[in-house]
Amino acid sequence: MADPIRRLVQELARLPGIGEKTATRLAFHLIRGNPQQIRDLAQALLDATERIRLCSVCMNMTEVDPCAMCTDPRRDADTICVVATPSDLIAIDRGGHFRGRYHVLHGLLSPLEGIGPDDLRLAELVRRLGGSDTGGVREVIIATSPSVDGEATAMYIARTIKPLGIRVSRIATGLPVGGELEYSDQATIARALAGRATM
Amino acid sequence: MADPIRRLVQELARLPGIGEKTATRLAFHLIRGNPQQIRDLAQALLDATERIRLCSVCMNMTEVDPCAMCTDPRRDADTICVVATPSDLIAIDRGGHFRGRYHVLHGLLSPLEGIGPDDLRLAELVRRLGGSDTGGVREVIIATSPSVDGEATAMYIARTIKPLGIRVSRIATGLPVGGELEYSDQATIARALAGRATM
Repeated sequence: MADPIRRLVQELARLPGIGEKTATRLAFHLIRGNPQQIRDLAQALLDATERIRLCSVCMNMTEVDPCAMCTDPRRDADTICVVATPSDLIAIDRGGHFRGRYHVLHGLLSPLEGIGPDDLRLAELVRRLGGSDTGGVREVIIATSPSVDGEATAMYIARTIKPLGIRVSRIATGLPVGGELEYSDQATIARALAGRATM
Repeated sequence: MADPIRRLVQELARLPGIGEKTATRLAFHLIRGNPQQIRDLAQALLDATERIRLCSVCMNMTEVDPCAMCTDPRRDADTICVVATPSDLIAIDRGGHFRGRYHVLHGLLSPLEGIGPDDLRLAELVRRLGGSDTGGVREVIIATSPSVDGEATAMYIARTIKPLGIRVSRIATGLPVGGELEYSDQATIARALAGRATM
């Protein structure tokens, strides 16, 4: 294999979920195709690394600081939804059911992987709420996944924020819409029962 | 989503087998990661599109013309293995069982998709064999896949080359090593029977 192809395969194979076979297929597809496509991809990569930074308010990735969400007057400034990653933020915002602001932690607490509070963007959240009027924030919704790390992170954040006099809530855990009781795991059923709401 | 991220996702999603969700995951992985990795990938893409051309002899992708395989004196010049794509060439050469030269067609005949002989690098193969001494080539092994298009292409090439007085052979079709008769399709079993060899 020619050197530039081999290097392209190597670089593509460093991406998560892409092995050497897929990388080879992608490389040949790109080289065989329109040279403009390959240049567009290269430019998009360079733009992304040069022009993207973290919003100084919510820590989401942005081109302008503060980001468009933090300066959008149609979004309620009194509710903050805390998420682990920018992808989680997109997943929630896509639905359009939440019209408040966000805060991105960039990870979850994970003692096993040695990730502690200082490795997350947690201090920035506390600073954001820390003014005499808690920055006008009345509720913090913790929207980390209901995994071991997600739960631990939620507990930690709740303990940190509650003393500031802000309401802290947690997204519900239960059966997914369209889910079948018969095929649900016991942990989910237990959580769905515990979280039952009066009708 | 910030514009540079959105564009990167769009460009990644144009790759085969990569949908918008995977593209989003890859984009965030890259942006979150080491900026040098993203620059290396961009550079590899640009190098590949600028420095790779087709070898004027075998039509494989190469940085130097003629390519290293065509000028390798340890490779028999009297046998040419014809493959559909550079990836197929790599698949065959990886085994190290073939030590001759190659010819890459860059496709297969496909009447359904409107791909005819002029769309393949077939004229270049004929020209390569066309000298008074057939370029020293004694055998052409047609190693296209045993698919409908692969078989049709093999037949067409055989008909084109045989008049030049060169032996034309076809890779065997049959059960794969480790394959189970019980789970093999009838077409494969039929071909394995038809292609049986005396022991």
